Amino acid sequence: MATRANSSRERILATAEALILQKGFTGTSIEEILDKAAITKGGFFYHFNGKTALARALVERYIEQDNAVFHELLAQADRLSEDPLQRLLIFLNLFTEMVSGMLTIHPGCLVAAFTYELQQLDEEVREQMVAGLLGWRTLIAERLVEVAERYPARTPVSIDTLADMFSSSLEGGIILARLLDNNQALIDQVQSYRTHLRLVYDPAISALAH
Amino acid sequence: MATRANSSRERILATAEALILQKGFTGTSIEEILDKAAITKGGFFYHFNGKTALARALVERYIEQDNAVFHELLAQADRLSEDPLQRLLIFLNLFTEMVSGMLTIHPGCLVAAFTYELQQLDEEVREQMVAGLLGWRTLIAERLVEVAERYPARTPVSIDTLADMFSSSLEGGIILARLLDNNQALIDQVQSYRTHLRLVYDPAISALAH
Repeated sequence: MATRANSSRERILATAEALILQKGFTGTSIEEILDKAAITKGGFFYHFNGKTALARALVERYIEQDNAVFHELLAQADRLSEDPLQRLLIFLNLFTEMVSGMLTIHPGCLVAAFTYELQQLDEEVREQMVAGLLGWRTLIAERLVEVAERYPARTPVSIDTLADMFSSSLEGGIILARLLDNNQALIDQVQSYRTHLRLVYDPAISALAH
Repeated sequence: MATRANSSRERILATAEALILQKGFTGTSIEEILDKAAITKGGFFYHFNGKTALARALVERYIEQDNAVFHELLAQADRLSEDPLQRLLIFLNLFTEMVSGMLTIHPGCLVAAFTYELQQLDEEVREQMVAGLLGWRTLIAERLVEVAERYPARTPVSIDTLADMFSSSLEGGIILARLLDNNQALIDQVQSYRTHLRLVYDPAISALAH
């Protein structure tokens, strides 16, 4: 992994992502990426035949990295509890702790950034992003199915909508955090999603209400 | 209003907003706006001294229009019920009906688009967007305070976070809807927020649980 992380390809991708999340895809020129990454034009075109190829590689890498983080935190949650609801609630707290530990404002979500520049990107990039989003839906929905088998829902819910609420809370929370220049806004929205899951499934909350 | 809507200034702004939501701020040139809006360069610079001035006018107009929609739907909800919780729940259903009636995919949120191109915009635009976001927070929070006075919360909540969850659900839901090319994803997230409010405050749900 260290070799790959230090490779010129990875340096181009990391630099491009950081720039795009601040300036947009169109607002980020290949020249600026090369300049910041200290890569020659030849070095860039050895890896990518243009900006479209770069966009595809960026989305692929972004979704892979996000999935790796989610899987790692879910695996940790699985080690910490046997209960399917507690596992999801622990996962959301581990995610919160990760955001709390960030020294800078959350860098943003590449999928959201590209969603606001869709006309600048080709159909393949859109399909990659949809696949990524549906992957996140499946990841959470599989967990929610196990939760729903053990705990009756306090009100009728769609598992897919409840799973999408995770992605939606992150996307919405990230926009709020960036705008307010404070990660707490993202943390609050992730925690609101966590509270929502508890209100739907956690028998302990019903007991508190009386 | 008709005069203003037909004015060249309004035509520039409406055209620019539609283009920016598809191509980003940097990806939209003044030339393209003029071309689509059938306005001369002189006509453009009569109203705006450049792209920065255009960005400021766009954000001002976007927030004004959003506020007008929210106020109209809230006023309608107020006419339909005396109960503060029902008023908010009706408002969210009216909003859902509005999105259901859209013939195309939700055009997107200018504030979200600009949040992903912050480095291309000046500090004043960011401040305008923050003021807009805090305005939406206040609008919902004032309602939530009335709800909380009448109904005990089933679990501890922060009124501001719960109010921000409205904006977050819209922002997240819009990204999902645009990506999936289906407004239902936005409707589902607005309805999830509505369910969340019911789970926190609505005594009818507690009764159902038994």
